[in-house]
Amino acid sequence: QNVSVHLRNKEQCNPEFLELNPQGLVPVLDDDGRLFTQSLAILEYLDVQYPEPALMPTDEVDRAYVRSIMLQIACDIHPLNNLRVLKYLEYNLDLDLQSRNDWYRHWIAVEFQALENKLTAESKSGSFCYGDSPTLADVCLIPQVANARRLDCDLSTYPTIVRIEENCKKLAAFKKAAPEHQPDAE
Amino acid sequence: QNVSVHLRNKEQCNPEFLELNPQGLVPVLDDDGRLFTQSLAILEYLDVQYPEPALMPTDEVDRAYVRSIMLQIACDIHPLNNLRVLKYLEYNLDLDLQSRNDWYRHWIAVEFQALENKLTAESKSGSFCYGDSPTLADVCLIPQVANARRLDCDLSTYPTIVRIEENCKKLAAFKKAAPEHQPDAE
Repeated sequence: QNVSVHLRNKEQCNPEFLELNPQGLVPVLDDDGRLFTQSLAILEYLDVQYPEPALMPTDEVDRAYVRSIMLQIACDIHPLNNLRVLKYLEYNLDLDLQSRNDWYRHWIAVEFQALENKLTAESKSGSFCYGDSPTLADVCLIPQVANARRLDCDLSTYPTIVRIEENCKKLAAFKKAAPEHQPDAE
Repeated sequence: QNVSVHLRNKEQCNPEFLELNPQGLVPVLDDDGRLFTQSLAILEYLDVQYPEPALMPTDEVDRAYVRSIMLQIACDIHPLNNLRVLKYLEYNLDLDLQSRNDWYRHWIAVEFQALENKLTAESKSGSFCYGDSPTLADVCLIPQVANARRLDCDLSTYPTIVRIEENCKKLAAFKKAAPEHQPDAE
């Protein structure tokens, strides 16, 4: 069952939601009464619970490589461009839309360039971030590429990232997970 | 071997360092020529390579719980208060020191309160974030408490966090890892 939480209407700040996650952030996974927070913790848990197809390598060195890409996106892009930070920039620092968009694009540009360099230098990448089948690294990357496109970021200097995005978009699971196919899409 | 990288002198932007990590961020682990980036990926790798003492639970539900605390700190506090963001606030947004400190303290306050609520509501916490022995959650939390103290944050409303900090500080490993005991401490 999928329960939508309308962030711009601040539903994540409702007392009922804060009981599920004191952070007031989405997503929360309720697995038969056991609550899970933090996207990456949820992803690794689901990958163990639903082992087919495996979205993490078995080798520990390779797992660390996949995790480093997941974390680069989840730590070094996503939190900086999250709604609550954009609101702080708007209301506490009085930044106009142009300056907020510059901020957003800046962190995407810095990190996409670093990730592009990592993917091209690294023999572990292939059709996807790791080898020739999708992993949790791609699961983290693709929503961030969607954000970059939404903010009209120039992606031409990240050919490897764009190629990986194209390969992901061919897969039914990624199509199904696209923002416009969610029940609460506006 | 420990190699220090002086961030305020921008040594992380040297070409030699960018070869190790295109992100230009510390830390990097070089394990016999294999390079690892992203603190949380490095921590999980080291915990597998050096299984005694285990710093992660074996149960997958509990692993997700420990990871959720690690990620709360690594995603939702640390990147916002990182040096490069503070520099953006200073040089791109022309914020004075007071406003930059307000920013720093704001994200600590928001997340420490959420973590305090989680730890008190959650039966999994004990003398440490998870049970009565330290895990990677404590390894992530303690440096952030040190940052909070450095910025004179009021910690009185986070009694559980302060108690966990006290318990960690009694342990030799945490003493050894304190900032003032590092070879590059100034």
